Amino acid sequence: MARQELHIHLVSDSTGETVHQITRACLAQFPDADVTEHVWTLVRTDEHLELMFTGLMRNPGILLMSIIDKDMRDKIEARCKKMGIPAVSVLDSVVNLLASVLGQAQQNLPGGQRQINSAYFARVAAVDFAVSHDDGMNMGNLAEADILIVGISRTSKTPTSMYLAHRGYKVANYALVPGVPFPAHYLDGLDLFTVGLTNDPKRLSAIRKTRQIAMLDNENKTYADIGAIEEEAKEARRLFNRSGWPVIDVTRRSVEETAAAIIQLHTNWRESNA
Amino acid sequence: MARQELHIHLVSDSTGETVHQITRACLAQFPDADVTEHVWTLVRTDEHLELMFTGLMRNPGILLMSIIDKDMRDKIEARCKKMGIPAVSVLDSVVNLLASVLGQAQQNLPGGQRQINSAYFARVAAVDFAVSHDDGMNMGNLAEADILIVGISRTSKTPTSMYLAHRGYKVANYALVPGVPFPAHYLDGLDLFTVGLTNDPKRLSAIRKTRQIAMLDNENKTYADIGAIEEEAKEARRLFNRSGWPVIDVTRRSVEETAAAIIQLHTNWRESNA
Repeated sequence: MARQELHIHLVSDSTGETVHQITRACLAQFPDADVTEHVWTLVRTDEHLELMFTGLMRNPGILLMSIIDKDMRDKIEARCKKMGIPAVSVLDSVVNLLASVLGQAQQNLPGGQRQINSAYFARVAAVDFAVSHDDGMNMGNLAEADILIVGISRTSKTPTSMYLAHRGYKVANYALVPGVPFPAHYLDGLDLFTVGLTNDPKRLSAIRKTRQIAMLDNENKTYADIGAIEEEAKEARRLFNRSGWPVIDVTRRSVEETAAAIIQLHTNWRESNA
Repeated sequence: MARQELHIHLVSDSTGETVHQITRACLAQFPDADVTEHVWTLVRTDEHLELMFTGLMRNPGILLMSIIDKDMRDKIEARCKKMGIPAVSVLDSVVNLLASVLGQAQQNLPGGQRQINSAYFARVAAVDFAVSHDDGMNMGNLAEADILIVGISRTSKTPTSMYLAHRGYKVANYALVPGVPFPAHYLDGLDLFTVGLTNDPKRLSAIRKTRQIAMLDNENKTYADIGAIEEEAKEARRLFNRSGWPVIDVTRRSVEETAAAIIQLHTNWRESNA
């Protein structure tokens, strides 16, 4: 099939993050499409609208918008109709549903700035929490955590924690060390969702060898040794089983997929505890 | 107005990031709503669907979904209709538009995994680039960059670069130091979009004082001195004007807003150069 070029104009009265995310998710369904994105952010004035329309005329295609102000949305729709440009207001279906079930009108907050900021600060707090509770730090202070991740070395604990923090979860992680028992007393009296991560020993050995070469470490012979790693992984599994923690094998998962699996387990745990 | 409690079930066959982002953006319009989110990720099997429906029956409300597989989407819609649960498939309007303008059917890729992964790797590459080009590092290697940010100390250059990297832009940043001329020769022969950041001298002085206290730095008297900062800011503005770079005052902006303004300037620059 010949590749077609499509210009997509993403128009937002705020940072454009939402319309960008939606576009990325939808374009994943059309891998053959050859797309050029034109990102118009913070569009809040008529002057800015004119600038955007000039760009749209130069490279016509489609327009996807996340614009709260109804007047501005109407203006864009009218103009696009005249130009023959298909335009979709991406949040309309959800906002309309919310307005009807909540029985209240939307507030027309420009860019929804207030809540976006509070969501932003919650995310910043979650990221701070992940940074200060990485790799066994501050284990005495887990009461605030939503999730604890436990796993042996190189099972993506830190990037997974960071991704979950970006989604708003407060996550601590603890790296199991061979021969050192897990300090279970930190969990006493807490009702904390905990998950164990494992990885295929063969893959772990390969990852660790690469890492040792990069770090010029010739000292630690057991770190990448397959027999030792198998024993280490078995010991971790025994701990997970004994503690009744769910286990995720990260072998063929991206960080995002591991995080999604943890969110799902956390939901199941919370729903069945509710 | 009395606060109403609404249960929102977010259902995704993938990581749930998109439906989460859409929900957050829409809820910003209803600051009085008291919402409990139930996040169901990686929903790809009938067993998982049943688990989700059990949760939905326990806490009825509304359902927002990002599900690619048509059969599964139909199942969810039919069941919700029977239960009297309003359900919206959040990407439908955009996917339908893309299908019609591209003249091709969507590919029903489970979770759009392929492209999500390639977008994910592009983002990882952009973050790596931002880390290795932070604060004047590797200025000899700007040919690959999309954006260069120049500013005096404490104008949020690093967090802004990181946020832009998350959006997929390759960003380098350079901190201006009083009395040291900007090394303009690094830009020779490059057609690189460059933006200058400034901040209100009074606010800068306050921020820097706090930072000095945190770092126990009593040596550097001029760092937080208002007169010295005013001179430093003036010198920066002279450089920005002379070079013809657009300038953003970050004083009352969040990192996300500064980044959105940079994206907009970058779009304008690219569109007028096209």
